[in-house]
Amino acid sequence: MKPKKLSTESYKGVRDFYPQDQFLQNYILGVMKKVVERFGYVEYSASILESAELYRGKTSEEIVNEQTYTFTDRGEREVTLRPEMTPTIARMIAGKRHELPFPLRWFSIPNVFRYERPQRGRLREHWQLNADLFGVTGIEADVEIISLAAAIMREFGANEDDFEIRINDRETLREKFKDKELIKLLDRKDKMEEKDFIEAWKKISDKMPDWTIEPGKKVSDVSEILEKRGVKTVFAPTLVRGFDYYTGIIFEVFDKNPKNNRSLFGGGRYDNLLELFDESPIPAVGFGMGDVTIRDFLELRGLLPTYRPSTQVYLVPVAEVDMNAVLEVASELRKRGVNVAVDLTDKKVGDKIKLADKNSIPFAVFVGEAEISSGIYKCKDLKTHSEQSLSIEEIAKSVKNL
Amino acid sequence: MKPKKLSTESYKGVRDFYPQDQFLQNYILGVMKKVVERFGYVEYSASILESAELYRGKTSEEIVNEQTYTFTDRGEREVTLRPEMTPTIARMIAGKRHELPFPLRWFSIPNVFRYERPQRGRLREHWQLNADLFGVTGIEADVEIISLAAAIMREFGANEDDFEIRINDRETLREKFKDKELIKLLDRKDKMEEKDFIEAWKKISDKMPDWTIEPGKKVSDVSEILEKRGVKTVFAPTLVRGFDYYTGIIFEVFDKNPKNNRSLFGGGRYDNLLELFDESPIPAVGFGMGDVTIRDFLELRGLLPTYRPSTQVYLVPVAEVDMNAVLEVASELRKRGVNVAVDLTDKKVGDKIKLADKNSIPFAVFVGEAEISSGIYKCKDLKTHSEQSLSIEEIAKSVKNL
Repeated sequence: MKPKKLSTESYKGVRDFYPQDQFLQNYILGVMKKVVERFGYVEYSASILESAELYRGKTSEEIVNEQTYTFTDRGEREVTLRPEMTPTIARMIAGKRHELPFPLRWFSIPNVFRYERPQRGRLREHWQLNADLFGVTGIEADVEIISLAAAIMREFGANEDDFEIRINDRETLREKFKDKELIKLLDRKDKMEEKDFIEAWKKISDKMPDWTIEPGKKVSDVSEILEKRGVKTVFAPTLVRGFDYYTGIIFEVFDKNPKNNRSLFGGGRYDNLLELFDESPIPAVGFGMGDVTIRDFLELRGLLPTYRPSTQVYLVPVAEVDMNAVLEVASELRKRGVNVAVDLTDKKVGDKIKLADKNSIPFAVFVGEAEISSGIYKCKDLKTHSEQSLSIEEIAKSVKNL
Repeated sequence: MKPKKLSTESYKGVRDFYPQDQFLQNYILGVMKKVVERFGYVEYSASILESAELYRGKTSEEIVNEQTYTFTDRGEREVTLRPEMTPTIARMIAGKRHELPFPLRWFSIPNVFRYERPQRGRLREHWQLNADLFGVTGIEADVEIISLAAAIMREFGANEDDFEIRINDRETLREKFKDKELIKLLDRKDKMEEKDFIEAWKKISDKMPDWTIEPGKKVSDVSEILEKRGVKTVFAPTLVRGFDYYTGIIFEVFDKNPKNNRSLFGGGRYDNLLELFDESPIPAVGFGMGDVTIRDFLELRGLLPTYRPSTQVYLVPVAEVDMNAVLEVASELRKRGVNVAVDLTDKKVGDKIKLADKNSIPFAVFVGEAEISSGIYKCKDLKTHSEQSLSIEEIAKSVKNL
């Protein structure tokens, strides 16, 4: 019996990254990395495999039981594919807290897994920048983290009309709204229809003094310093953030486009991070920024770059040229930092050029007997179709100027 | 009852990457990426989650059943954490073969998972460069792939005394050694004690004409071209490589150090790649190179670089300076491409410098009232302890020259 033909589809809710997709992914993750490094953050990472118990304490039961990939390994260990990075960083910091030179500025761009129905902006696997500052109690830390979030958005080419930074203080929120039901409602606000929210709100509104709450001192101070640094924030008394672990200033970056009006990402202060490990607290502020939502945001605004492969030159052997000489030209270009693919097909020259163009390689360089003896090569810019005769030095130079 | 204290250890057989570890990991993966891009390879990737059926056809049953992480998801799908990248790339290429412009040069540096007892050089999760050239039948492709492997080793600083490239032809091997038992024995050769191998060898040696087999034409041709390109190879008639899918030239890079005498990595030709998907064959040559074995190799020879954080400047506020002015200096430096961490502690200046030094940050720049009004800042090189007074422009310049 002939075996069933295998599917070429990826597993449900995850993505294949063909070179064009990978290019965009590298762009998005590259911008994140560049900006956090500008702010003095250093990279760490860990395995996606974690002991399941890491998620049982702090995260809500619903998340561990229904929204994670958890399985038992052959050594009877319960293993979870990390659904978020915070428990991992808490574990790593608790494990070496006495050796680490606080304050720490750490970042990572891990892939994280959620077992849920795939939908726009929510896949089963996504990448998420995590940037955290540990060991600073004062609001300077909150200011830095929010500045950093804004700087990344700007580096992506977004401007003030595109997004809004909403800010609140979890502490005063707890103080004012002792009602758990209310906090839960506020947290679901952006996922609800307006009328459903108002209805639910009315039901519990008699417990509340007023909609228009004044920002507390911390929110005002943070906003004022940020304003001086050119970062606008909006006080959002109904902003809660889902996770239980926030303890102070929280923020969310919202997409202002009416077609995509939703939270892009957010973060805040979570000073009780090490509680799980029976360790005394370490002050912490940070945020997580997912690749999928950011990609949607950039796509909507035409802010994603056009595909350019890392390959810069397609080297085309002409007629019966000696292959060793062609490979020597490739070597010389590579030594000068040029990324070169050598044509190994037996196609006609015209088809070789088409192939380079299909791969979006910007330059074709032709190598025949005459070129090898003169050291001057015919080069074709595949975008402008202009041709030049250049030495290896000159090719390297003009490729770098691109 | 007080809950049990959570462990701060990572899951068994996987690694945490603290910034110093991540730096080395970025170095290793960065060298791989740089060199493959020089050869015109473009990056792709995919999720670690794959349907388990992808591994049932081609890979030996032992690997799927006992050596992979396979579990059933809540939709009754059998899911495997990819143990290698080749089935994934086969799936991706089969899925788009009619749109893709062959030949393709593709690479990826995925993490892959094996469920086995952790030991030196074999962890449950490791990263593995996969570089593959699809669509070229001729030996130029084999030559390129082996050149690429050698170029990566050289870029790591290894020289010819450090490693040896062994080469064989699976096709002539099959032709000559029809005995399956013998092939299996040869494949296990490097994992066996010399005396055990000889004993097993003797048992089946009467089936064999002679130990000293001549290389076939393909091996000779490939070796000759490589020799001209400065890449030495050694014909290894007993080299087999474990996977069933190889169909032509195979190679392995061996560590020549007596303390670490073993295969570092390898690859070869596998033209039947798409068989699983009922597709007509596509010629393919490639190799996989793991991070753990390479790291051991480099460590043994002192070829790993010393830790340098991405952070270049530690900005130290002095006395009662206005924080907004300090943040402005940070912004100006960042605009010029300098990675700056701002000190937010209330430590004494001496302790702030110590902190920068503990974080291996090379420069401290001091910002007080006087500096802000003059625009000239005292800078301390934390390695040489020399001090200079520099403008923002000059700081940016001297940091870049580092």
